[in-house]
Amino acid sequence: MLLKETIEDMRVLINRELKNTLEDEIGYQEKIVEAISYSLFAGGKRIRPILLLKSCEAFGGSYNRSMPFALAIEMIHTYSLIHDDLPSMDDDDFRRDKPTNHKVFGEAIAILAGDGLLNLAFETMLNHITQNSQCIEEYRRNTRAMNEIARYSGIYGMVGGQVVDLLSNDISMDEDKLLFMYRCKTAALIQASIVAGVILGGGSDEDIEHMRRFGLKLGLAYQIRDDILDKEEDEGMKKVTYLTYNTIDESAEKVENLSDEAIGILKLYKDKDMEFLINLTEILSGRKV
Amino acid sequence: MLLKETIEDMRVLINRELKNTLEDEIGYQEKIVEAISYSLFAGGKRIRPILLLKSCEAFGGSYNRSMPFALAIEMIHTYSLIHDDLPSMDDDDFRRDKPTNHKVFGEAIAILAGDGLLNLAFETMLNHITQNSQCIEEYRRNTRAMNEIARYSGIYGMVGGQVVDLLSNDISMDEDKLLFMYRCKTAALIQASIVAGVILGGGSDEDIEHMRRFGLKLGLAYQIRDDILDKEEDEGMKKVTYLTYNTIDESAEKVENLSDEAIGILKLYKDKDMEFLINLTEILSGRKV
Repeated sequence: MLLKETIEDMRVLINRELKNTLEDEIGYQEKIVEAISYSLFAGGKRIRPILLLKSCEAFGGSYNRSMPFALAIEMIHTYSLIHDDLPSMDDDDFRRDKPTNHKVFGEAIAILAGDGLLNLAFETMLNHITQNSQCIEEYRRNTRAMNEIARYSGIYGMVGGQVVDLLSNDISMDEDKLLFMYRCKTAALIQASIVAGVILGGGSDEDIEHMRRFGLKLGLAYQIRDDILDKEEDEGMKKVTYLTYNTIDESAEKVENLSDEAIGILKLYKDKDMEFLINLTEILSGRKV
Repeated sequence: MLLKETIEDMRVLINRELKNTLEDEIGYQEKIVEAISYSLFAGGKRIRPILLLKSCEAFGGSYNRSMPFALAIEMIHTYSLIHDDLPSMDDDDFRRDKPTNHKVFGEAIAILAGDGLLNLAFETMLNHITQNSQCIEEYRRNTRAMNEIARYSGIYGMVGGQVVDLLSNDISMDEDKLLFMYRCKTAALIQASIVAGVILGGGSDEDIEHMRRFGLKLGLAYQIRDDILDKEEDEGMKKVTYLTYNTIDESAEKVENLSDEAIGILKLYKDKDMEFLINLTEILSGRKV
């Protein structure tokens, strides 16, 4: 109960901070702010920013220090959804029961809203860094965290995963390629959130690599859990997923193993308060509602 | 003659460095690197990176220090062209006599190539910053330069200009709005290049603001000069341009005045070598071939 309240409080906080990043004073291009706001406040669960804030906190950092990065992660996630939904991509008319961005604003504005949001993610981090970095160590952590976020978002991360997904009709999709795609498309931004949080909180290089593995396991557990839920919803779907190569029972076992391993990494930190991250891992892998 | 050789040498250098930013080792998403390379090496004149490198040099900085930012600017420019050409935007089949990105790779990959390039621009700057910043002053300049580039590229700059351009059929386009669009769409990235160069070269706050005005005047001169050239090519075009509100003679005079003012700003720096930038301003405003 306390956990749910904490999550809900964090969502409220993140939503308020997201609103503050959009400037009131805007010229003739105000339509783009409307389109961006539409998708940014369409009911996202804010999982990635919560992971970032809480990873930072676990290693001793404040929300203050990590919030702009958390907002940036959510902006990047939202831009990827807007572009994924486009007619030439997944061609989706609805997301979370609301018409998709291009259905409301047209395709051109939706493309620009995505471009603008990705750009705004970097502006948000950079405004913070240029205004608030006090010492070289702070610059080092801030730019390193931003670099991790950038790398995981681009062609070697999320965008790369989207490319493989898109071409999966043309190229043979074996299990190896599928897991590569999951690492890029789903795990990458989750890893980015966690690793950036650890860096900002002051974790060591060893901590960063430990938590990077935690993020990978959590990301894959989350994605395969999602495959299972999708399968239960829609028996007839054609898309290649983890369940193409594994039974439901095998898939559920895989999710359990991954989340056990993820939690095992967190439990290595006996001197840190990892309770929230452990609970969240259980929720995201469907072991706790 | 010497000027042309310098420009040509810089193009060769920039092209080589751009090639080096694309990693050889890439997984199943290699198609995206192909699509990115196609547009990145489609014969761009590299005006923006040249402006950045030379602005940095004029204020005492080396190419070494500014090259990653110059490459980033060219990546951002290229991504904007890929997205501008899309069917839902300008719907262009050719650019510089070659089929546009979506004509070769399809719309979905073209969207992702643009997304990937914008992201890669930030990765390129951040890889450099995290690896090479030695002192707090270097971090300060590097993040400040990147922040200028980010702001000028986004919804308050280039993307904003594209939105106004796109909606110009819906909204009444008076001369004030047109000039606002020119400032965002064309001048913004030129200003970003110059301002980032000055910051990286170690210019003072006053230098930065002087050169920001230089960039604005150069950018507007360049755009109106382009309008004149387009008009000469295509008498019948419908698009609102500077020539909608001004005669050819008035427009040519405006270009001359803007470039005079731009050069006037450069000539204030009696102790710095501004010859290259003066010459380039004359070329870009059509006063010198």
